[in-house]
Amino acid sequence: MGDRIQLAHGGGGTLMQQLIHQELRALYADPAQVLHDAARLELPHGPLAFSTDGYVVQPLEFPGGDIGSLAVTGTANDLAMAGARPLHLSVGLILEEGLPLELLRRLVASMAMAARGCGLTIVTGDTKVVERGKADGVFLTTSGIGVVEAPGPIDPTAIRPGDQLLVSGDLGRHGVAILAARHGLALQPPVLSDCAPLWPQVSALLEAGVRIHCLRDLTRGGLASALQELAEAAEVELAIEEGRLPVLEPVARSCALLGFEPLHLANEGRFVVAVPPQARDQAQALLAASGGAWIGSVRPATGAGARVLLTTALGTERLLVPLSGELLPRIC
Amino acid sequence: MGDRIQLAHGGGGTLMQQLIHQELRALYADPAQVLHDAARLELPHGPLAFSTDGYVVQPLEFPGGDIGSLAVTGTANDLAMAGARPLHLSVGLILEEGLPLELLRRLVASMAMAARGCGLTIVTGDTKVVERGKADGVFLTTSGIGVVEAPGPIDPTAIRPGDQLLVSGDLGRHGVAILAARHGLALQPPVLSDCAPLWPQVSALLEAGVRIHCLRDLTRGGLASALQELAEAAEVELAIEEGRLPVLEPVARSCALLGFEPLHLANEGRFVVAVPPQARDQAQALLAASGGAWIGSVRPATGAGARVLLTTALGTERLLVPLSGELLPRIC
Repeated sequence: MGDRIQLAHGGGGTLMQQLIHQELRALYADPAQVLHDAARLELPHGPLAFSTDGYVVQPLEFPGGDIGSLAVTGTANDLAMAGARPLHLSVGLILEEGLPLELLRRLVASMAMAARGCGLTIVTGDTKVVERGKADGVFLTTSGIGVVEAPGPIDPTAIRPGDQLLVSGDLGRHGVAILAARHGLALQPPVLSDCAPLWPQVSALLEAGVRIHCLRDLTRGGLASALQELAEAAEVELAIEEGRLPVLEPVARSCALLGFEPLHLANEGRFVVAVPPQARDQAQALLAASGGAWIGSVRPATGAGARVLLTTALGTERLLVPLSGELLPRIC
Repeated sequence: MGDRIQLAHGGGGTLMQQLIHQELRALYADPAQVLHDAARLELPHGPLAFSTDGYVVQPLEFPGGDIGSLAVTGTANDLAMAGARPLHLSVGLILEEGLPLELLRRLVASMAMAARGCGLTIVTGDTKVVERGKADGVFLTTSGIGVVEAPGPIDPTAIRPGDQLLVSGDLGRHGVAILAARHGLALQPPVLSDCAPLWPQVSALLEAGVRIHCLRDLTRGGLASALQELAEAAEVELAIEEGRLPVLEPVARSCALLGFEPLHLANEGRFVVAVPPQARDQAQALLAASGGAWIGSVRPATGAGARVLLTTALGTERLLVPLSGELLPRIC
């Protein structure tokens, strides 16, 4: 079939069948799935979570991951953020004519491995091919189904004044890894993307009986955007202690060099969680094992409205000003 | 927010919030859904069908539909082909910087209308923006969940020699509509895409007690590709009476003019169904109401292997040779 994607690979004919059977079969836990337009699922009884995300990251491969692992893990993480155990995933591929098949094979293998890492199965998919210059290598859209295991609502509107805020690990590595890959920066030591499944940490909190009011993964826009959205949805003020934000030294150094703030950098394996005051210490103990930390608390909104305040190392407070876009486009 | 999509509309910041709240809210049956990364679903007990499809059609708007109606209806139809009633849909948008907001609004309205027409609700979504020249206006990926109502397996491997084959309506209109739109052909009368929900016809067959062995929608590659795939999966020979294929006169005329065969043209609202011999007349009566017709039958495979034979108007048989790609790229 040559060594590059051709337009006819998307055409529904014999070349497309070859592509699916030879190259994409590896995605599926059950190879028979490759034959079906729709997967038949027998799910456990109970509420389900359903999520979708598109992935357009550049470069397609970067330190610590690639668009394939990102697309599988990212959507699994959106389910985890709804308190749901990820079960099944669909993968829609939009390929640009001329894409090297070798690269596609690496991405397929990466997706299959990420699926195993997330404990989910890829059960259905679709492939389209567009002309050279009409896409950018590969775009992926994954959709996931999970079963909700959280006992109560996990939602920004469940956040209450007094709630405690924690992050699940160190911040900003995905953003720095993409930046370095895109601009050829040779960071020493190299900074790897934090791309990782979030369900294990959420599950540990749930199993320990920690009452979770809200979960939000930190992706585009980083911690800053996540906090801003939560403050607005819950109509509260969030007080964050800047000195508590866990940032690894190479990331902090890159930020100082480039003039970025770590809390604006993208992550792909981190979340912020709001828990009631009495659950703080237990949540902190569970998350600290993987680099997480307590970062602040929730206050009632004042006349100034919903906002995020950062307490600096000097003890002064400054307002977090939300970005209109993001530091780097196409981070995921 | 200006009148065109900017890169920052995909960035996770305030501009993205504006885009979602002002422009995409109309997608959702429940506007609160726009706030959540994952939808929480309470589904009826029983097996579910799960499907996904990407849409890259050009032009984005064409006679009888647009990429939005296609993306909603197409994935709903994949569920119907698994014998499932479509219930819920996710929509992933990949937008090219510079896309006119007015066009996006028309597509959003079209998706919302198509969702109502399919009897499903859009419950979750995602939006990415890529730089000008890195996509082609809009790519959509929809994923759907349905509840299986068919009592038995609907699968190519359930096809048996003796089964009867029917199509659900006239063939080739979507292909001709796209071709005309792309090349500025002013057909008189204009040929409109056949884009339409398939569940109503499938449901009518099921409710009448027709035992369905297999369903396959005719999309890329048309009836020809669908028949070829079924013959190979079931390891049988399909004998099709060419004179029985329902083709409207303007489509037949366009085909004669352009040298195409109607059974290679794409459809977006048609299926082929295999039923046991005793169900033929009932199925034919039900499908005839919407332009469907009996087209042939299933024979055991001979030494020549799985194949599709066309009986011509002269009574001779010729082999259907599958295309390697399709007549027109980016038909859906």
